[in-house]
Amino acid sequence: MKFSIKKEIILNQLLHVSKALSNKNFIPILAGIKFELIESGLLLTGSDNEITIQAFIDSEKFNIIKLGSIVIPGKYIVEIIKKLPDEIINIEIVDGLKLLVSTQRTEFNLNGISAMEYPKINIEKNKKPIIISKNIFKNIINQTSFAFSLQETRPVLTGINFKLNKNTMECTATDSYRLAKKIISIENNDELFDIVIPGKNLIDLNKIIDDNDEKLEIHIFNNKIIFIFENITFQSKLINGSYPDTTKFIENINILKVYTNTLEFYDVIDRASLLTNDKEKNIVNLEIKDNILILTSNSPEIGKVEERMEIEKNNKVDLKISFSAKYMMEAIKAFESEKIEIIFNEETKPIILKNPYSDDLMQLVLPIRTY
Amino acid sequence: MKFSIKKEIILNQLLHVSKALSNKNFIPILAGIKFELIESGLLLTGSDNEITIQAFIDSEKFNIIKLGSIVIPGKYIVEIIKKLPDEIINIEIVDGLKLLVSTQRTEFNLNGISAMEYPKINIEKNKKPIIISKNIFKNIINQTSFAFSLQETRPVLTGINFKLNKNTMECTATDSYRLAKKIISIENNDELFDIVIPGKNLIDLNKIIDDNDEKLEIHIFNNKIIFIFENITFQSKLINGSYPDTTKFIENINILKVYTNTLEFYDVIDRASLLTNDKEKNIVNLEIKDNILILTSNSPEIGKVEERMEIEKNNKVDLKISFSAKYMMEAIKAFESEKIEIIFNEETKPIILKNPYSDDLMQLVLPIRTY
Repeated sequence: MKFSIKKEIILNQLLHVSKALSNKNFIPILAGIKFELIESGLLLTGSDNEITIQAFIDSEKFNIIKLGSIVIPGKYIVEIIKKLPDEIINIEIVDGLKLLVSTQRTEFNLNGISAMEYPKINIEKNKKPIIISKNIFKNIINQTSFAFSLQETRPVLTGINFKLNKNTMECTATDSYRLAKKIISIENNDELFDIVIPGKNLIDLNKIIDDNDEKLEIHIFNNKIIFIFENITFQSKLINGSYPDTTKFIENINILKVYTNTLEFYDVIDRASLLTNDKEKNIVNLEIKDNILILTSNSPEIGKVEERMEIEKNNKVDLKISFSAKYMMEAIKAFESEKIEIIFNEETKPIILKNPYSDDLMQLVLPIRTY
Repeated sequence: MKFSIKKEIILNQLLHVSKALSNKNFIPILAGIKFELIESGLLLTGSDNEITIQAFIDSEKFNIIKLGSIVIPGKYIVEIIKKLPDEIINIEIVDGLKLLVSTQRTEFNLNGISAMEYPKINIEKNKKPIIISKNIFKNIINQTSFAFSLQETRPVLTGINFKLNKNTMECTATDSYRLAKKIISIENNDELFDIVIPGKNLIDLNKIIDDNDEKLEIHIFNNKIIFIFENITFQSKLINGSYPDTTKFIENINILKVYTNTLEFYDVIDRASLLTNDKEKNIVNLEIKDNILILTSNSPEIGKVEERMEIEKNNKVDLKISFSAKYMMEAIKAFESEKIEIIFNEETKPIILKNPYSDDLMQLVLPIRTY
């Protein structure tokens, strides 16, 4: 293998691929990035068994001298390319299993591993993938990914549920204390599926997707999912097991709807939770009294706080309820709308947040009994 | 105590004073900030016994309603003021030992402690303090503070030595593996002193000094030092014990002087150290051969690197030497000059770095024997 390439071209792709490498990996070769130089270009692969990221650099973008392949420790090759001056970099296999990375004045000789030893990774494609814009997909992840569970006790809850039924895709994340649901429409689709994708893998994927309206292909298989965009292929395992039915959780007999400014609501909760601490789950108390929303919290050792803001409401009902400030703030942050609708249900039922003018995003937060 | 004040005015001063608070403090009241409202203004005090920071807000800048004093947990009062909307804040002692912090829609009630219980802090002044510009003082700290020792085994080495002799002040830091010395001139001075100021306290002080050419007053006493600038008073303990004589360390019989570009020299060492690790003290090998400087390092498991750069030199001597890349990079970073002079001495003597056109800053790094 021998080629020369502009620093920025290879660095960008190495940075993408290296997101798949895990420090905790027990298979030493998976700490490496596989370089495969074929006639059509350079294929870079990183994997931690859970996810695999491949980036392809077309042969038109650099100068191929000799084909070949090798696996190189990911941590070092990325740091080296990052710190080389901005110029043409020569990369070449020497002495069988060493990689020589050189510029005019710099020579790095890195110990590599034979590409034959790298696990076989089978990237398939469907004939008819689901296609959505990258920015819509990023929104799904940003608006739901804080709500999946970090506890491994119920594995399906560590994922985000994608449920496609003809032209509607519902994306749901919950840790059983709060729930985020985003609904998007998919054009010209006649597929059905109901899968759970590991939440942390989607967060990794989200980091390498640019925020623009170019297309993202989604290929779904029995036990894995593949995302393809630009020159990148991202593969993740799926989580086995069926996702809980959340419709009952969402069904509501609302007793009061409140309308208020989104940012202002966020700020009053933020301040009201200043004297609470994580151990107490940042509990704040909310009271609706006429057209005033009052938030309080009380920490006997430190002190107490009372915040007030004006609201609009749909009936004359007053109420008191308590909830986790952290969960409520994460839910509010998912909204881009200037106004927010807060739907209060019966005492033990979740508080629902939505955009008053759209039903595409719903955030639920369970109240906490404080008496 | 009762007053109202603009958020930004009190927040800035609280942020300064809170730098003195330590999480590790065993004296609970020192987790607090003392508020003293007297006729001339508001005096805020924070202290951890090692350092004390006071900020004074002149009565002209806010509205005093009633004098008084109290101590309030620093962590909470700073967070609260930071998150209040930008407007006038009312601060008032209620129920004896509670602080009510309120704006139109927000009320915080914080538990306080009587100001009588706060340790007495005696801030004195000299009749004739040393006066230097803030930016010169900041330079001293920035160019020496990385070199003091973090090991408590030799307490004086955890400080920076300030030695004033008439119009010259020498500031020295060393951990016995490298040394940084900055020399500045002090006008109209006839004082003599030779003190050691705890390095970490100077780093704290540096954070609250703006980078401009306004004046800084330095008042020196037997066991403490006081810095006064704008409305801020910063007091630090001194370290007992006499600082080692470093002149012998610096005396040199140079065998070769090399001149090169500062940034380029930094970059080649940075890259040459990429394959080393902290355990090995990031050792790199330097070779001067004709007009080429060659840097190499070798890590049998990972690989090896060779960097080359052109240099000028003052004689025909060639040499080989090894040193810690980390120490050398920190030393280089202290220079603002485009060019740097590297003075090589006998084998076991320090390598000296200086600006070729000035003697005000000197950095020494001990070589490491690798054979």
